[in-house]
Amino acid sequence: MNFSFTEEQEYFRKILKEFAKDELLPQYTKWDREGITPKHLWRKLGQLGVNGLRIPAEYGGSSADCLTTGIAAEEIGRGDFNLTYAVMLNALIGEIITKHANENIRAEWLPKIASGEAIIGIAITEPSAGTDAGGIQTTAKRSGDTYVLNGEKSGISVATAADAFIIFAKTNPQLGNRGISAFIVSKDTPGLECTSYEDMGNVSIGRGSLYLQDVEIHADHLIGQENEGFAQVMNGFDLSRLLIGLQCAGAAFQSLDETIEHVKIRKSFGKPLAVYQGVSFPIVTHYTQLEMVKWQAYRGLWLRDHGQKHSKESASVKWLGPKYSQEAIHECLLLNGHYAYTKEMPLEQRLRDVIGLEIGDGTAQANQMVIAKDIIGRDFRSY
Amino acid sequence: MNFSFTEEQEYFRKILKEFAKDELLPQYTKWDREGITPKHLWRKLGQLGVNGLRIPAEYGGSSADCLTTGIAAEEIGRGDFNLTYAVMLNALIGEIITKHANENIRAEWLPKIASGEAIIGIAITEPSAGTDAGGIQTTAKRSGDTYVLNGEKSGISVATAADAFIIFAKTNPQLGNRGISAFIVSKDTPGLECTSYEDMGNVSIGRGSLYLQDVEIHADHLIGQENEGFAQVMNGFDLSRLLIGLQCAGAAFQSLDETIEHVKIRKSFGKPLAVYQGVSFPIVTHYTQLEMVKWQAYRGLWLRDHGQKHSKESASVKWLGPKYSQEAIHECLLLNGHYAYTKEMPLEQRLRDVIGLEIGDGTAQANQMVIAKDIIGRDFRSY
Amino acid sequence: MNFSFTEEQEYFRKILKEFAKDELLPQYTKWDREGITPKHLWRKLGQLGVNGLRIPAEYGGSSADCLTTGIAAEEIGRGDFNLTYAVMLNALIGEIITKHANENIRAEWLPKIASGEAIIGIAITEPSAGTDAGGIQTTAKRSGDTYVLNGEKSGISVATAADAFIIFAKTNPQLGNRGISAFIVSKDTPGLECTSYEDMGNVSIGRGSLYLQDVEIHADHLIGQENEGFAQVMNGFDLSRLLIGLQCAGAAFQSLDETIEHVKIRKSFGKPLAVYQGVSFPIVTHYTQLEMVKWQAYRGLWLRDHGQKHSKESASVKWLGPKYSQEAIHECLLLNGHYAYTKEMPLEQRLRDVIGLEIGDGTAQANQMVIAKDIIGRDFRSY
Amino acid sequence: MNFSFTEEQEYFRKILKEFAKDELLPQYTKWDREGITPKHLWRKLGQLGVNGLRIPAEYGGSSADCLTTGIAAEEIGRGDFNLTYAVMLNALIGEIITKHANENIRAEWLPKIASGEAIIGIAITEPSAGTDAGGIQTTAKRSGDTYVLNGEKSGISVATAADAFIIFAKTNPQLGNRGISAFIVSKDTPGLECTSYEDMGNVSIGRGSLYLQDVEIHADHLIGQENEGFAQVMNGFDLSRLLIGLQCAGAAFQSLDETIEHVKIRKSFGKPLAVYQGVSFPIVTHYTQLEMVKWQAYRGLWLRDHGQKHSKESASVKWLGPKYSQEAIHECLLLNGHYAYTKEMPLEQRLRDVIGLEIGDGTAQANQMVIAKDIIGRDFRSY
Repeated sequence: MNFSFTEEQEYFRKILKEFAKDELLPQYTKWDREGITPKHLWRKLGQLGVNGLRIPAEYGGSSADCLTTGIAAEEIGRGDFNLTYAVMLNALIGEIITKHANENIRAEWLPKIASGEAIIGIAITEPSAGTDAGGIQTTAKRSGDTYVLNGEKSGISVATAADAFIIFAKTNPQLGNRGISAFIVSKDTPGLECTSYEDMGNVSIGRGSLYLQDVEIHADHLIGQENEGFAQVMNGFDLSRLLIGLQCAGAAFQSLDETIEHVKIRKSFGKPLAVYQGVSFPIVTHYTQLEMVKWQAYRGLWLRDHGQKHSKESASVKWLGPKYSQEAIHECLLLNGHYAYTKEMPLEQRLRDVIGLEIGDGTAQANQMVIAKDIIGRDFRSY
Repeated sequence: MNFSFTEEQEYFRKILKEFAKDELLPQYTKWDREGITPKHLWRKLGQLGVNGLRIPAEYGGSSADCLTTGIAAEEIGRGDFNLTYAVMLNALIGEIITKHANENIRAEWLPKIASGEAIIGIAITEPSAGTDAGGIQTTAKRSGDTYVLNGEKSGISVATAADAFIIFAKTNPQLGNRGISAFIVSKDTPGLECTSYEDMGNVSIGRGSLYLQDVEIHADHLIGQENEGFAQVMNGFDLSRLLIGLQCAGAAFQSLDETIEHVKIRKSFGKPLAVYQGVSFPIVTHYTQLEMVKWQAYRGLWLRDHGQKHSKESASVKWLGPKYSQEAIHECLLLNGHYAYTKEMPLEQRLRDVIGLEIGDGTAQANQMVIAKDIIGRDFRSY
Repeated sequence: MNFSFTEEQEYFRKILKEFAKDELLPQYTKWDREGITPKHLWRKLGQLGVNGLRIPAEYGGSSADCLTTGIAAEEIGRGDFNLTYAVMLNALIGEIITKHANENIRAEWLPKIASGEAIIGIAITEPSAGTDAGGIQTTAKRSGDTYVLNGEKSGISVATAADAFIIFAKTNPQLGNRGISAFIVSKDTPGLECTSYEDMGNVSIGRGSLYLQDVEIHADHLIGQENEGFAQVMNGFDLSRLLIGLQCAGAAFQSLDETIEHVKIRKSFGKPLAVYQGVSFPIVTHYTQLEMVKWQAYRGLWLRDHGQKHSKESASVKWLGPKYSQEAIHECLLLNGHYAYTKEMPLEQRLRDVIGLEIGDGTAQANQMVIAKDIIGRDFRSY
Repeated sequence: MNFSFTEEQEYFRKILKEFAKDELLPQYTKWDREGITPKHLWRKLGQLGVNGLRIPAEYGGSSADCLTTGIAAEEIGRGDFNLTYAVMLNALIGEIITKHANENIRAEWLPKIASGEAIIGIAITEPSAGTDAGGIQTTAKRSGDTYVLNGEKSGISVATAADAFIIFAKTNPQLGNRGISAFIVSKDTPGLECTSYEDMGNVSIGRGSLYLQDVEIHADHLIGQENEGFAQVMNGFDLSRLLIGLQCAGAAFQSLDETIEHVKIRKSFGKPLAVYQGVSFPIVTHYTQLEMVKWQAYRGLWLRDHGQKHSKESASVKWLGPKYSQEAIHECLLLNGHYAYTKEMPLEQRLRDVIGLEIGDGTAQANQMVIAKDIIGRDFRSY
């Protein structure tokens, strides 16, 4: 057993920690105010090797392991929560394309993803299919050399910033989960329209909807085998859920660090807030919960790196990582008082941002159902 | 014992419930987006008798009891959380002026408060004196017929919308709590400058700072006896804290109502969300906690109406009312999924707004200290 | 509205508080150690008017309202948690017999219940029918002037101490809930065998099983109409659940009182434990939760007294009363340290005893289902 | 990084898991009922290599690492919670004697500890010094070749079963923490009297008090340097606290396993309990919390094995391990219904037993103070 990172990993963490502190944190609130996706920072992350971690070297990536990817998620989360999407989305999409797509797709997209030149979104959820991903209604009909896609995708990250999307559609509506396929669709494909929401947070991510009306794509845009899209994405979620936990934990740890400095200085009744157990014990509680869920995430990533089962661990991290982080950041905001309620401090934005990932990629209930299936058994599903 | 409201109170509730639903709720998010204090709605509330509940009839109010004031706080909270400040602030200020101010001040301000023509803020907290109100540093020096005020007030509601403020300042810095006095200061008094914050929520309340530089006011602007301001405001807090609990509960009950409708309709895996105990039990939990804190508030108001001790009840309501409400609204947001994360629905704003009253008027810690002093004893204060 | 008890009620509370302190508390642990049901104390409670609160004056009771019955539950709970069964069981059974039984049964049993001479148990649950009371399998077959009962009842309080039982059995197995009837069966009826369990707590209550083998009783032992037993007992549960909340709260308040005295005296690092917020804040939390659930209980009792709906309130009190009490007592035990872990102090017994009523009379889940049915709707039942 | 145990460790776990299941679990409740310390099982554990894990091979142990010791704590906890004291106490005492005692003491006691022939207790806490270990009042006065000990020790595990105790006493009362020394004192030393408590749980551990009246021991019974006992034991606590977390987690995991089997079979309203999310989600919650604290414990043990700081991790595990376990077992008890409230099932005893280790070896507050000191800083101690 070994609970230490390699020297290389520690060095990567150090580089990213400094980058997050010096270049991301000072501008974190800027993109929220201005409603901009800072594409130049995606490219900067590309230069730092963050975007291509799960992409083979031959396509411009580094073939890093999942553990190392987790480090990036955590450290970028300290600086700019919304830029962690560059870690998580790119890891998810990098894996899917690398494992399942044909050589053309790989050669076209992977180098651009790795460099940060291209942003790819992933489009699964629909107005009436969130947790129940098998219930999507977007269809892809084969017609000679092409597929024609019709439907509506909602709650899609980088909806307006992406250059292309991996879109999941039913190629065999009779088969439920087993009739879903994945396609890569360029943003400018005729018939594809992208709109953005005015969201509570994650503003610089530009979440929105995709409307597909007779979107015609060549059949070689299919990723993997027909009707096997569901398994691909579910396997990918086992990775993204672990990364999400670390993204949120990074943002929460940063909030705790800032708050600890505050309570050492701020006085009430003549003493620093930090000497009151009514202040220090909540900090201790949040810190400890976050530390535990962080290590649960790294353990899950290690299991994935070693080809072992990790759906349960992944679900636990997606459930409790955002939850503990939201609770910690909320407490930090309260401990900083009215000043933290203003937009001068990053805490209110972190709270708004983190809530976005309490919802996306699986609700608390969905993740608890995954764990229940594992520890109680699939014959006792509650649905 | 009697747990029922009078017919008159029930009628008042009905009127306000309808008004909240028909005229406040549809525009609730509008003032947040536009950053406006809707003064015309303060006047509308004045016409409905909401602003003058704690003001004698001779000054345009209705001399209603605290219980009835609580009804207004709860029902307005269902429609527009930020407009509940009209209930709470006006009750607090109405009481302070009625009980302590001289006839001139009463005659000048009370009718305008009752009608909604004037908005009065209350200025206690300072950059380095929040929970520890006795630690304020603003001074008021007597000089002949005038007082000269200097200092800075921060975290003041209606900072830019108010026509006047009740400002607390030290008239005897040597005496700590016992050297504080209250003054009414018109907004356009020379030397008084008001700025507003860009806040996470409560946008239409316009929280901000007051800067006082040699603000000279006539000595008859003193409210009550010199050096007795602290006791006045602490007594007032026992009322406002009860109302705050009901304001928050109103917003949370409305959120639950909306969410219950949603989970009856929205389906997952072929069944309405409402049939899953993972959905219904959290709703039940929040509903029950809110119901209990609501009745704790009404009990506290009744105790106040009957001249009985109620600081402990008041503190419990200020502590748990906003807390339970924030938790309930947060859960409602999650249960509504991504759509609730957009600004199309009021939930994200309610969450941002309610957090403002988790901080203002006494932190969780401050309120627990009040309860501890009561049930354990003042000799065991933790400060 | 009126949140005060009458002078008469306050006097009754005072009498019972003193009795609990002077005569019950000193012997509370004795009955647990010795495994005895202190029948002399049931009679003593009879003399104090506790057993006959819900029994008409003509049968030796006082026809008190439910509110007053709640006072008894709370105060006896401070002295001897297990003796609160005399309040709760007698109220439940007193009501059922008074409302539904024929004159013979009333005349025979009510005076003896009121005086404490007789203890009557209530037998509903069975090995495979707990929460799902409609699923009982005990049958009562009419045969001329008699009914013949067969079956097994489990988890029955006062199984070995009772003089008679109200036994629920299916008179029409085809009808589910609607085919259940209630009978009064004397303990010495041939074919009825009672055994007792070795329980974790509630030792002096003597919980156990009843085995019915061709138990033949005269048809006039039927209570109420045939096939209407379920509605009778469900209505009764709405009362007993409110009383259970107060019984538990009484035990928990007493524990808090004892613990507050301890933390004022016990020192750590040179200061009384009470000055540490890590000690005082948990006490404040438990106290406040208990205070709120206590008033929820009194409100529920008042609603019942006034013929208004109260199933939701009753379920909330049965769910949270025992839960909050168990948590409070557990915390008190920890705050008292190792000495409280010994049987020299009553805390460990209170914890064991209260857990018994977390289970009996409706689990947390069953009660949440009742509330969900009310606030979400019976069409969205989770079963 | 490596989150897998070695083959050897897995084999050791397998052996102990089977032993726990086959030989400990069936008799777990027996020792509680009979009030016996099953010394033959301590010897059996000695044969299995459990007692000598932290004892060098030359003295009959196996010099195993802390990680392996953790495995023993977890697995024995599944079978008989109270026998985990053989793991934890022997590890703690094995380390102290090995590291600090002279060769005579090592040669005399270590082989007997390893074999299970001798049981050694550790006596620190006193009636007025629990959390504040520096406040002990027992004194050891040097007088020529001997020390004379006087004082009273309370809350001492194996008080009546031990063959000897490591007793901490002040050799320099002026120096506070820095004036404490440790001595090994045989049980039959004149002047030493041991009494046992009637405890809520941990009955087979026989917790009690030691009374020392002019207990005269040879100076070579001093363990380590004079006045350095405090540092020794604090360092030892960092180990025992990690083991305690795993002991408790083992008992809780076993309870969850039993409960999962129950809810798959037990039906309510025609369906297995397991299909209700109101049942499965609490199981999932407890399982996940326990899994996280378990890995926090193994990480802490690994840090200790590698000479890295681990006081914070150790404190977190001592705080949350017993807490999460107590909560899980309590929930399991409730989910099993009335049958689990009887002494026929082990759940009620596990609950009583685990509470003992919520108190012993550091309260929740004490452990949170340790973490606060680490993450906030020792200048902000709350005492």
